[in-house]
Amino acid sequence: MRATVMYGAGDVRIETVPDAHVVEPTDALVRVTYAAICGSDLWPYKTVERSETGRRMGHEFIGVVEAVGADVHAVKSGDLVVSPFLISDGTCIFCREGLQSSCLHGGVQRGRYGFDGVDGGQGEAVRVPLADGTLVVLPVGKDDALAPSLLTLSDVMGTGHHAARSARVGPGKTVAVIGDGAVGLCGVIAARRLGAERIILLGRHPDRIALAKEFGATDIVSERGDAAVERVRELTGGFGAHSVLECVGLEESMRTAINIARPGGVVGRVGVPQEETMPASQTAFYNNLIIAGGPAPARAYIDELLPDVLEGRIEPGRVFDRVVRLDAAPDGYRAMNDREAIKVLIEL
Amino acid sequence: MRATVMYGAGDVRIETVPDAHVVEPTDALVRVTYAAICGSDLWPYKTVERSETGRRMGHEFIGVVEAVGADVHAVKSGDLVVSPFLISDGTCIFCREGLQSSCLHGGVQRGRYGFDGVDGGQGEAVRVPLADGTLVVLPVGKDDALAPSLLTLSDVMGTGHHAARSARVGPGKTVAVIGDGAVGLCGVIAARRLGAERIILLGRHPDRIALAKEFGATDIVSERGDAAVERVRELTGGFGAHSVLECVGLEESMRTAINIARPGGVVGRVGVPQEETMPASQTAFYNNLIIAGGPAPARAYIDELLPDVLEGRIEPGRVFDRVVRLDAAPDGYRAMNDREAIKVLIEL
Repeated sequence: MRATVMYGAGDVRIETVPDAHVVEPTDALVRVTYAAICGSDLWPYKTVERSETGRRMGHEFIGVVEAVGADVHAVKSGDLVVSPFLISDGTCIFCREGLQSSCLHGGVQRGRYGFDGVDGGQGEAVRVPLADGTLVVLPVGKDDALAPSLLTLSDVMGTGHHAARSARVGPGKTVAVIGDGAVGLCGVIAARRLGAERIILLGRHPDRIALAKEFGATDIVSERGDAAVERVRELTGGFGAHSVLECVGLEESMRTAINIARPGGVVGRVGVPQEETMPASQTAFYNNLIIAGGPAPARAYIDELLPDVLEGRIEPGRVFDRVVRLDAAPDGYRAMNDREAIKVLIEL
Repeated sequence: MRATVMYGAGDVRIETVPDAHVVEPTDALVRVTYAAICGSDLWPYKTVERSETGRRMGHEFIGVVEAVGADVHAVKSGDLVVSPFLISDGTCIFCREGLQSSCLHGGVQRGRYGFDGVDGGQGEAVRVPLADGTLVVLPVGKDDALAPSLLTLSDVMGTGHHAARSARVGPGKTVAVIGDGAVGLCGVIAARRLGAERIILLGRHPDRIALAKEFGATDIVSERGDAAVERVRELTGGFGAHSVLECVGLEESMRTAINIARPGGVVGRVGVPQEETMPASQTAFYNNLIIAGGPAPARAYIDELLPDVLEGRIEPGRVFDRVVRLDAAPDGYRAMNDREAIKVLIEL
């Protein structure tokens, strides 16, 4: 079968790899219909060291179940399913608490972490371990127009929602969203969905800003650093935002997040932190801020978000502004990295 | 009148200073009956730069109202009152939300921050600004045996309680308390009061450990650093504590706090952070930890804690293991700094 393999920074290839198949009795084999390139795929695309063997890519996909192991009961051949970016068994102590991102037996759907021989999502087929805990059946046909939005439940929509939930967004709240990438845009959707009164997007790309406004952003701040902090303060009576969604992960964005939060406010961070230390710890302390967030338990949120996608109340699939076939996935990486595209959909 | 003045590291003197008196119509003049030396007074005691004018000390005291300004209505001459360590007006947007530590017009009861000419608490009398919002009347006589416990409501008991509330301590939870100083010990009291099932104290001083056990600590960990992390993990089935109370403020203690928290758990920090950056940010992120806390809104908590002190259900005054007269306050500083005393009570 064909799949996406990264050999080094900027070096992504589509290659023939061994066919995926069921190995463990808890596995499902999924024939991919749509996959996505994630903003987090760009970190290795920028910086990963060259390797001879390469690294299978992709953790966002939907597809049709083709075979299941003997112990799989929740999905069956022919089901259209979405696979969250993290594998989870659904039964461990953390899964039962809704924190599937800390599943004791889970990991990342990709060949490197925890599951040797597991396929990445950007390929023709995928072996999904712990299928009963991980996969969710989608009650639509595989060519349904909702496919792009359903695909976002694998990661970005769940992650934006996690930022909003972690930041305790609710009715009447003033929310600031840092980052105009796909996750930030989904954060805007989530904030509006949870009843935020005001949603300030910090971003600078006209196409993304336009989409953010359609998703519910009420104010745009395109300044950076201290100037951005000052502008958000001006917009919030001098106090800052109740809830800040940090959707970038850089030191500067985290510093901004802390500096624009209102005393007693919350920063919900989902941008993977690129530094081992967090800045502005004293500012956070003196203002009694709450810093929350981490990898989203996307599996937990599908139950909550799926009805809104199916009934068209939210349209996160609009973050895809480019569609490519698998053979063109390498150019999809380039386009996202060059900021030509917000997010790339791979149609299998 | 006589009061405590710090001129430099290790240089605390009792001196004659101008008599305190009512200046603003919102002031109260309080004749101090008991004051305390705070762990946070030891930071300048170790490190403050020498000054010619000195710095008035003390922010924990109870006393009798001697005079009030024309606009003071909540307290009157003759009332025994407790003064939280932060001044607050009780009417601003943050005070109304219970975050008096971010009062728009408040500050620290001491001559340096925000209130020029305001007295420290370690002296014969104190001008208390914004008396209506700040002071709380105590329904006992000034020589009541409960005085030491009532005095802790000005800071340490409220601060330990804030750590526990910030860390979301509740029934059935496993709690770890980092720091065996007066705040950590009050954190143990607060954790037990809020229904924690298990309370692990990280500390190494036999006298403090003995008191912690009486307050409700169920386990003691005297290791440090990685060994402490390993020991707490052993005690908690490998997972860590639901709630961690960080009552020290050093980089190492914060790192330990993050490393002993269970995935999805909360660190409630009240130790004033001595570094501008927070360590182990990535660990906190990947485990979806919540980092909360800051200066306690002690004023808000007095309403909740006072009945328990009056009825003897909690005895935080037991953290005082040395009593001195005002003239001996400098030796009280030395004794606390040398860890001869947990906490020093100054009897006026």
